[in-house]
Amino acid sequence: MDTTENQNTIFPKGERAPADYFTGNVWVTMLVPNDPNLNCQVVNVIFESGARNNWHTHPGGQILIATDGIGYYQEKGKSIQLLHKGDVVDIPPDVQHWHGASADSEFTHIAINPNTQKGIVVWLERVTDEEYNSYR
Amino acid sequence: MDTTENQNTIFPKGERAPADYFTGNVWVTMLVPNDPNLNCQVVNVIFESGARNNWHTHPGGQILIATDGIGYYQEKGKSIQLLHKGDVVDIPPDVQHWHGASADSEFTHIAINPNTQKGIVVWLERVTDEEYNSYR
Repeated sequence: MDTTENQNTIFPKGERAPADYFTGNVWVTMLVPNDPNLNCQVVNVIFESGARNNWHTHPGGQILIATDGIGYYQEKGKSIQLLHKGDVVDIPPDVQHWHGASADSEFTHIAINPNTQKGIVVWLERVTDEEYNSYR
Repeated sequence: MDTTENQNTIFPKGERAPADYFTGNVWVTMLVPNDPNLNCQVVNVIFESGARNNWHTHPGGQILIATDGIGYYQEKGKSIQLLHKGDVVDIPPDVQHWHGASADSEFTHIAINPNTQKGIVVWLERVTDEEYNSYR
């Protein structure tokens, strides 16, 4: 066991994320499945460097909590924003966006999907290499 | 800077929690303030060993994510449950409970309060030393 790496890991690596909605190697651990009492789904996501999800929206909004590594977050029409451990992103309902690892670092975040009675996610087109590489 | 300790710390220590609702030394960092778009408040809480909150309920339920140390969680009428890094607790709406550090270790958790349109928290009586020390 690599205990050095383990110090920063809160959750197990989880399952491979579906290739239809993700580019590169991504692992997902379900922390809180959706249920009608809490209306809130929580997942831990680990992106290998270069990996990201498709453009998408959340009918109930989303909160991202960066816990390790360096990530990218982009809303449609805006520049890519760098995410570091401890950064929190509030994403209003229906705002088109994507997130993933930066080009040179793995990235881990907790994703909180509230208001799931309105729906969880609407997947859209892939993030192209040109879009991904637009970070300056 | 103590970099050894810093490796496991995701968020700053924050503000002192209000003495009316907490016993012992507790620090709170607001990660996501309540707003009518997300209906979801997120806070990071650090409890010194022996510290805990009062008995309370959440009208919209609560999710706890243990990120460091060893904690206690108790629902009314049940035994105290030990919490370690990576443990997740789903607390249904209106279930009376308290949480805090264990007697011998500091404890850190992220607390997610969904469905805040129903209310955030209803504070009740203090957790007595007898209740706190009932962990076996």
